[in-house]
Amino acid sequence: MRRYTLLIATLCLFDLAAKADEGMWTYDNFPSARVQSQYGVKIDQPWLDRVRTATVRLAGCTASFVSKDGLILTNHHCVEGCLAENSSKEKSFIEDGFIARDREQELKCATQIADVLVAMENVTDKIAAATRGLDDRAANDARKRTLTELETECEKSSGLKCQNVALYNGGQQFLYKYRRYTDVRLVFAPEAAIAAFGGDPDNFQYPRWCLDMGLLRAYENGKPVQIAAPLHIDFAGPKENEFVLVSGHPGSTDRLLTVAQLRYLREVELPQALLRSSELRGRYIQFAKTGPTARRIVQDPLNGLENSLKVRRKQLDALLEEALMNQKIRDESALRAQVAASPELKTIGDPWADIEKALATQRDLALEASYIEGAAGFNSRLFRFARTLVRAAAEREKPNGERLREFTDAALPRVRQTLAAPVPLYPELERLTLSFGLERMREWLGPDHPQVRALLAKDSPDSLAETLVGGTKLADPAVRLALWDGGRAAIDASTDPMIKLARETDAAARVLRKRVEDEVEAPINRAEEKIARARFKLYGTQVYPDATFTLRLNYGTVQAWKEKGVQLSPYTRLGTAFARATGQAPFRIPDSFERVKEKLDLATPVNLSTNNDIVGGNSGSALLNARGDVVGLMFDGNIHSISGAYWFDTVKNRSTAVHPAIMREALSKVYGANAILAELERR
Amino acid sequence: MRRYTLLIATLCLFDLAAKADEGMWTYDNFPSARVQSQYGVKIDQPWLDRVRTATVRLAGCTASFVSKDGLILTNHHCVEGCLAENSSKEKSFIEDGFIARDREQELKCATQIADVLVAMENVTDKIAAATRGLDDRAANDARKRTLTELETECEKSSGLKCQNVALYNGGQQFLYKYRRYTDVRLVFAPEAAIAAFGGDPDNFQYPRWCLDMGLLRAYENGKPVQIAAPLHIDFAGPKENEFVLVSGHPGSTDRLLTVAQLRYLREVELPQALLRSSELRGRYIQFAKTGPTARRIVQDPLNGLENSLKVRRKQLDALLEEALMNQKIRDESALRAQVAASPELKTIGDPWADIEKALATQRDLALEASYIEGAAGFNSRLFRFARTLVRAAAEREKPNGERLREFTDAALPRVRQTLAAPVPLYPELERLTLSFGLERMREWLGPDHPQVRALLAKDSPDSLAETLVGGTKLADPAVRLALWDGGRAAIDASTDPMIKLARETDAAARVLRKRVEDEVEAPINRAEEKIARARFKLYGTQVYPDATFTLRLNYGTVQAWKEKGVQLSPYTRLGTAFARATGQAPFRIPDSFERVKEKLDLATPVNLSTNNDIVGGNSGSALLNARGDVVGLMFDGNIHSISGAYWFDTVKNRSTAVHPAIMREALSKVYGANAILAELERR
Repeated sequence: MRRYTLLIATLCLFDLAAKADEGMWTYDNFPSARVQSQYGVKIDQPWLDRVRTATVRLAGCTASFVSKDGLILTNHHCVEGCLAENSSKEKSFIEDGFIARDREQELKCATQIADVLVAMENVTDKIAAATRGLDDRAANDARKRTLTELETECEKSSGLKCQNVALYNGGQQFLYKYRRYTDVRLVFAPEAAIAAFGGDPDNFQYPRWCLDMGLLRAYENGKPVQIAAPLHIDFAGPKENEFVLVSGHPGSTDRLLTVAQLRYLREVELPQALLRSSELRGRYIQFAKTGPTARRIVQDPLNGLENSLKVRRKQLDALLEEALMNQKIRDESALRAQVAASPELKTIGDPWADIEKALATQRDLALEASYIEGAAGFNSRLFRFARTLVRAAAEREKPNGERLREFTDAALPRVRQTLAAPVPLYPELERLTLSFGLERMREWLGPDHPQVRALLAKDSPDSLAETLVGGTKLADPAVRLALWDGGRAAIDASTDPMIKLARETDAAARVLRKRVEDEVEAPINRAEEKIARARFKLYGTQVYPDATFTLRLNYGTVQAWKEKGVQLSPYTRLGTAFARATGQAPFRIPDSFERVKEKLDLATPVNLSTNNDIVGGNSGSALLNARGDVVGLMFDGNIHSISGAYWFDTVKNRSTAVHPAIMREALSKVYGANAILAELERR
Repeated sequence: MRRYTLLIATLCLFDLAAKADEGMWTYDNFPSARVQSQYGVKIDQPWLDRVRTATVRLAGCTASFVSKDGLILTNHHCVEGCLAENSSKEKSFIEDGFIARDREQELKCATQIADVLVAMENVTDKIAAATRGLDDRAANDARKRTLTELETECEKSSGLKCQNVALYNGGQQFLYKYRRYTDVRLVFAPEAAIAAFGGDPDNFQYPRWCLDMGLLRAYENGKPVQIAAPLHIDFAGPKENEFVLVSGHPGSTDRLLTVAQLRYLREVELPQALLRSSELRGRYIQFAKTGPTARRIVQDPLNGLENSLKVRRKQLDALLEEALMNQKIRDESALRAQVAASPELKTIGDPWADIEKALATQRDLALEASYIEGAAGFNSRLFRFARTLVRAAAEREKPNGERLREFTDAALPRVRQTLAAPVPLYPELERLTLSFGLERMREWLGPDHPQVRALLAKDSPDSLAETLVGGTKLADPAVRLALWDGGRAAIDASTDPMIKLARETDAAARVLRKRVEDEVEAPINRAEEKIARARFKLYGTQVYPDATFTLRLNYGTVQAWKEKGVQLSPYTRLGTAFARATGQAPFRIPDSFERVKEKLDLATPVNLSTNNDIVGGNSGSALLNARGDVVGLMFDGNIHSISGAYWFDTVKNRSTAVHPAIMREALSKVYGANAILAELERR
């Protein structure tokens, strides 16, 4: 049975809901009554408060506080960026892993942050008041201005990090208030060979054997943060069919999109992104073959790319499935019929048609916007620094409310942190990605497009990339900070070729951005709000909002599924990993494990499968039992879970967790990380 | 106005036909009366016979005899394979071009052939008789057996090359009889920089400035072939709006596919092929950056890959256009309604549903079949030699009629020619493609697929490719011929690792092939025949068959089109090419032109645009005026022409030709190829 119908079906809402464990619930709308009646488990307010304050949001991932001294448990792939930042051409912490034997050895993660959600304020009415009576474009501008003002006020009055969250496609507007930690350090990571055993071939597959764990620690004023109520790890793990929950920050789902929006994804966005990523993957892989240094420095970007490639490929597959699309068409027709039949609702007009019209404009603008404003044509971290510096200099001169949203006062500290971070940048890799971006921009926009012509009238993509990467000094954080601190005068005076490129392309890029905001974003936002309000009138909060990389809680049970008629077990064991190893990456068990193989309990469970409804961003989330103890560490979904972007398939959509037993086995017998293990076991 | 409706519309057939110049007509069904009434031009039987016997089919391209001494005019990109085969790591004829100053300097094209169509025999009734009363699978087998017998008899009795051609999706079966020349030599090719000026970015674009020409010569018994009536080149070229024709071998169109078949292309075949090609493109490009040798040896395969990538990308775009698909749906419904309303036709049942059912099976089989039987997983020219040798040894022991069709007596000489050809093979490139194939096979079939597991249980794609390519001796044509001549005993005894791989994978590959033949091909062939017969009953031969890389003639006029509201000129001029050059590949004008720029007439037309309905395979076709003189050399279509795979858009579908004036200007002033020019000008 497929469950998407729940979202917009008109009958039997509770009945349907009771049958499956779908849903990414906000903490203020968790269906505790339903859980109590279905599972006999009481999830009360103290339980919710305790788990919420121990749940951490990292950049792109979730994590949990698991010791009173601020130890943070997350996935290896969530600390991979920190490992890469601390690596060099000669030494890869991704390949070799890392253990801090004492606090002094813990390594700073220069671009990492850790947020804990403290409060949620509903500001829907304030936004509605600020946009009432305005046309689409003016409303879009007013919404942004108002949100900037609300965030700034909130930060001033609370001392917290305040961020707008649009739930139900803008049907509800919130301010989420976080306690933010900006000093986050690396404590432990195993070798990638065991953390991501099976590599890309096994990514999103199950059965699976990955020790995808990493440990960080939050610091404040140079000292470990003290956590009153960290989560306790139950190393025994959960039983089959046991009731479990996942607290975390699912990144993004598109379950509420209109049919026209899904078609746009299917026909324009996903195919274009897939073609681009596939070629870049080929370039990365071939580059890696030029030597061990190349292999090391490309590892982190290649891992990220291959993950997104698999996700998008299976998303496209999902959207090409006629059954899914037909269901979406039926559901949308039903909702439109209800709206048309309601004297009150039919005043919203035809927002579906408005969206379709805006998407036609987007089809015309998308390529240019993506290559020039989205900087796919200047695909380089050095260029992104330059763009940020050039824009920030211009934006910081404006009143806070009139700036681009990524340069408001509330946003600036994080921007500065990123610029100041002493992260390694490899010119070989910058040239590769930049030349690739320029070449594809010329292909897709055409050699006669004015921006392309201006850049490549006397250059090839390779020669231009060489000049830019060879000439820029932006790899040096001191240079970046000097330009940041120098403001517009410093930017205007700069002869750095990358700054020059960012300056010269900025006007054209801003024009495209404004056109997209006015002609695509504004009417779509307005139309989505109308649909969301209609849905709200009809279904209330019996439904959950699409994922927005904000805190959610969901529930389910430990279970696998039937694949091609064969019932899979919800647990995998260590012995099977050894049997499956080929000795060659990515199916090589690292020496650290091979050396102690005789001492290891090969029956130790490694990974487990549950039917929780999770998605990218949930990586690193704790799997919790009814008591709120950690019984697993979410790190992936099965291949069917990728269609979860558009609907939840209760029959086959499964998530995958690291079993706590393998964490203890490895920390103790493989890594001898006894101090860390003791800290995890302390209550 | 779009014209696909002609094919299956029920009314106003002639009216519609008169409005546009669509159609790839067989020489026995050319609409001479319609042309006479519409353009006042008489295309009579002597005209047709003369042009037919001067039209040449090359491997994958078209060409024309243009001198009494067997000189063959075609595109540069049609002789690129020959240039690559004569090149080495040190010397690239693709980059440098080639001029034979006398007959002795002409270079053998080891794998090239030249075919001239001599006769066409309708064998529809013979096939019908052989398959009558049989079920789908038995009919499929019987059809192949009968075709093998017919071809063999035909070759014995005529001394010609006889090949089956299924027109109208099997509605008509023919034997086409060719005079074949197997000694084809290279006479002239300009540098790729001017032949393909603009490279991949400009491919399928117009305006355009390409000297995409090449000259070959056919030999027999060591002497140039004598041609009684070669085509004459009119170097003045055609006027705007002049009536013109194209005689050639369009490769393949899918205008008669059912809606279900088009959806299969859109959802399965094209996306998978595009992802694969995109990544391989990235690998090739990155490999090329490792040095000038790498750049030289990858040039020919990269060009081919990028061409197919652009074609498939725009084909996918076409199939994602709702207007096209809706038209196909309407047309199909109309045909089905007519069939259902006809007491005679409705006896065919529901072949559309049969096709849909077979396609569901194909969805399940396609990946395995493509990686294992299609050898995408063993992506290497060396493996393809091995597969051919292993299969040929087994097949040649069987009676002719029971062999796989590519190993019948009629097919063997060409197979042997390919094996014997002394073509360069670059181990670096073989390792690249083979490792890529193995890695993607593991990704798409999964690491636990039995074939994958058998190959990669203790190897990585790289290490296995290294072992296979490093160990095989099949790069040596003498080794290949020894295995060919030695037959099964030699194959069984061989310890060559590539032969071993081909031997060990052959059984599994054959199983997949047989399943595809029985469960997909057989029911689809039968259903397509039924639909074709129904169409024939309703519309007769007022319609033309899909392209099948067999001889066709079509007509049109010299004209461009309006692009985004701007009327383009049907001619481009040499001066504009110089203005557009950047000095960097692929927009670099070669030194040979730059050196003599002062002497060149910059007003010389370079390329021209017509509305002829052509497709890949037509490359190298002569553009003819009403007298049958050559007034251009087809080498491309505009970007809109790619949707011609599925329908003909009379408003925007245009083809592109090299203007004869630039050929003369270049041969005379740039290359000083006066002997060649004199031979072309001699009547």
